[in-house]
Amino acid sequence: MSTDRLVVIGGDAAGMTAASQARRRSKDLQIVAMEKGRYVSYAACGIPYYVGGIVDGFERLLVRSPEEFRSKQSIDARVRHEVLQIRPQAGKVLVRDLDSHREYEEPYDQLLIATGASAVRPDLPGIDAQGIFGVSSVEQATELRDFLEHQKPKRAVIVGGGYIGLELAESFTRWGLDISIIGRAPRLLRSIDPEMSDLVSEAMTKMGIDLYLAEEVTAFEEQAGRVAAVVTEKRTLPADLVLLAMGFKPNTDLAREAGLALGIKDTIVTDDHMRTPLEHIWAAGDCVQANHLVDGRPYWTSLATISSKQGRVAGTNITGGDASFPGTLGTSITKAGPVEIARTGLQETDLADGDVAFTAAKIDSITQPGYMPDNEPMAVKLLAEKSTGRLLGGQIVGGAGAAMRINVIATALQAGLAVDQIHDLDLAYAPPFSTVWDPVVIAARKLCDQC
Amino acid sequence: MSTDRLVVIGGDAAGMTAASQARRRSKDLQIVAMEKGRYVSYAACGIPYYVGGIVDGFERLLVRSPEEFRSKQSIDARVRHEVLQIRPQAGKVLVRDLDSHREYEEPYDQLLIATGASAVRPDLPGIDAQGIFGVSSVEQATELRDFLEHQKPKRAVIVGGGYIGLELAESFTRWGLDISIIGRAPRLLRSIDPEMSDLVSEAMTKMGIDLYLAEEVTAFEEQAGRVAAVVTEKRTLPADLVLLAMGFKPNTDLAREAGLALGIKDTIVTDDHMRTPLEHIWAAGDCVQANHLVDGRPYWTSLATISSKQGRVAGTNITGGDASFPGTLGTSITKAGPVEIARTGLQETDLADGDVAFTAAKIDSITQPGYMPDNEPMAVKLLAEKSTGRLLGGQIVGGAGAAMRINVIATALQAGLAVDQIHDLDLAYAPPFSTVWDPVVIAARKLCDQC
Repeated sequence: MSTDRLVVIGGDAAGMTAASQARRRSKDLQIVAMEKGRYVSYAACGIPYYVGGIVDGFERLLVRSPEEFRSKQSIDARVRHEVLQIRPQAGKVLVRDLDSHREYEEPYDQLLIATGASAVRPDLPGIDAQGIFGVSSVEQATELRDFLEHQKPKRAVIVGGGYIGLELAESFTRWGLDISIIGRAPRLLRSIDPEMSDLVSEAMTKMGIDLYLAEEVTAFEEQAGRVAAVVTEKRTLPADLVLLAMGFKPNTDLAREAGLALGIKDTIVTDDHMRTPLEHIWAAGDCVQANHLVDGRPYWTSLATISSKQGRVAGTNITGGDASFPGTLGTSITKAGPVEIARTGLQETDLADGDVAFTAAKIDSITQPGYMPDNEPMAVKLLAEKSTGRLLGGQIVGGAGAAMRINVIATALQAGLAVDQIHDLDLAYAPPFSTVWDPVVIAARKLCDQC
Repeated sequence: MSTDRLVVIGGDAAGMTAASQARRRSKDLQIVAMEKGRYVSYAACGIPYYVGGIVDGFERLLVRSPEEFRSKQSIDARVRHEVLQIRPQAGKVLVRDLDSHREYEEPYDQLLIATGASAVRPDLPGIDAQGIFGVSSVEQATELRDFLEHQKPKRAVIVGGGYIGLELAESFTRWGLDISIIGRAPRLLRSIDPEMSDLVSEAMTKMGIDLYLAEEVTAFEEQAGRVAAVVTEKRTLPADLVLLAMGFKPNTDLAREAGLALGIKDTIVTDDHMRTPLEHIWAAGDCVQANHLVDGRPYWTSLATISSKQGRVAGTNITGGDASFPGTLGTSITKAGPVEIARTGLQETDLADGDVAFTAAKIDSITQPGYMPDNEPMAVKLLAEKSTGRLLGGQIVGGAGAAMRINVIATALQAGLAVDQIHDLDLAYAPPFSTVWDPVVIAARKLCDQC
């Protein structure tokens, strides 16, 4: 292999995992990583916990500094370096040093595009007012935390009812804020089905959070340059802090301009080795289209687990190895106040096209036996193919200890188990952890009866 | 089917689950359950939490009373009724009413033996002194809790270093007792491998519990009828409370006397439908030999999960259905103070005979990302077949949230996954729940490198 010089565009999960894996496998390879932000390899998923004060300083989120990459792994990690163009014919990228404003060409033998995804920022009146924040970078997070500490806001409006919105709602409760969530969709968390989402809404309402769903933000009102209210078609909500959590879009302008055809949601299309159709160009992470493990459909979601796995696969293959990324189930988990939420595989809304005849069962159980004083409600929903009983997906909403059971469902899905096999699983039981019949098994039983 | 009258011997998990399942499937069947104790269908696994004061009254442990079985399910549950003999030729059992001392024959068309297991009680000098307790029944548990409340003991010695011993140690810490554990084996918890067990011992020692392992109790000293000390070959430990937790043995005298050949550890041998070789006689629960799901070996352990599953299978088949108990992995979980412990499948000590060439890997990880303030250590050990990479078993010892991951390993085992497939699992990640690479995946990776 002529892998003398690997250039990585993007210095977070996918990019730096690939760089590290490449270094592990090859001592001689030159590795250069270009990151336009100030930090590489930071824990974006930790941001809500830093904002909420659970994690003290943002430095804790920085897994490894550019200096460490340089000294410990001989990886030339260049922060504040933005790649402006990929020049596949020449085997070069055009780079701008954002501090010195110098532009230069950097040659590569292998190129990894790991440009990630960016938070959606709507082009609405008042969007640039002070007090409106995103949380998709450490820089934004430190600004927000600074604002919470020093400006002592009282009324927060979160725009967006997805994971990030809910996690930040929990963070804001720690600051004693009045919190409202405005969601464009009729329900929170579109990655779970409506009856499960309703349980989350109930819990949020119990926490004192006001929900305004099926509402669209039309503008932000400002006073003296600071945000004063959020305007929807239906109302004006006073706010001295606004959090934008309206989802992500893949950063693929560079890839498209380099001649790569884009897939769903404008993602880069690779094979399972993370190879793009352009020779010597690889891609991994949030900018890449994945395949769904249940039915092979093209699928995109922004998850650190997928990015890390794809980065590792890319780093292996770039250095002459043979690894493949099998696909994803979109397994994810989150916590909003006392409620745990998890999902994996396909959900009803994914199956709405009717191509697969399926059956679904939801059960309401508890996290521990009824005699244990800390037992909490826990709902499990499972979906299976009607003709074969093959599991298609699952969702969990419940109290402490509920949601990590999603891993049983994810493992069963990946192994291709049918619901009667899930019913027979020998799962762990002791009163601090579960009921004798695990709620996942109870759900499987109900589903068996319907298959 | 001539299932007019089902008699069940034993009124706990297996017996009453079978009775309930039989009733669910058949409205007309007469069902009689004989229980020699005072209670049916009680949560034996909840006893440590009742003793420790987490569960308030012992009534909370009684899932369903005989009256409820009678009124709600038309199940004639007779407590304080001991079956003295099974008469297969006559299709009858000989029963003694322990209150009236009346003996009578009860006819059956189908008989389920669900006699459970009894705590081992060594025949040692002083064993009958006051202050020496077992915890294998609600009656014993209420006596122990009463003793804790009113006698205010100060020094407890637990004889036995298995699950029950550890769970009771946790219970006793809640009463502020000085606690010692004496174990005959050189390590705590023989159901996990030595290097994992060592982690548990360290945690127990940190909790201030004194461990005396590889020591055998030879006698109990008493003063005025009350226990004063526990004597081993090596020392005399002062004690005003002794807990016996020396394991269980299946209750199979009745079965043997009825002509049934016994299997390992004197268990009743059934087929996967819970049928014994004697016509119309079934058996389920702690008195029955199970097959190990990994390699089919005969296996016995006392677990509520197995009893409930076998009871359900028996109840289905007794009423003309067709269910089977697939076998067990011996999946179990427990908590001792801040430490969670879980295991499933085969362990190194199971494979010591050398018939299967295996490889094992242990990793030390953490329950949450390093930046989360509550992250705790977590060790995972996995074993795989050397030639194929097929997973054979796993063990986990760690802090809060660690142990329920055992279900991923159990599911993978039951699905027959190889370690490289476990490495590829799409497991859930968010900072309150896990590291980006789940510790189970990290262990699988280490094992992959060895396979």
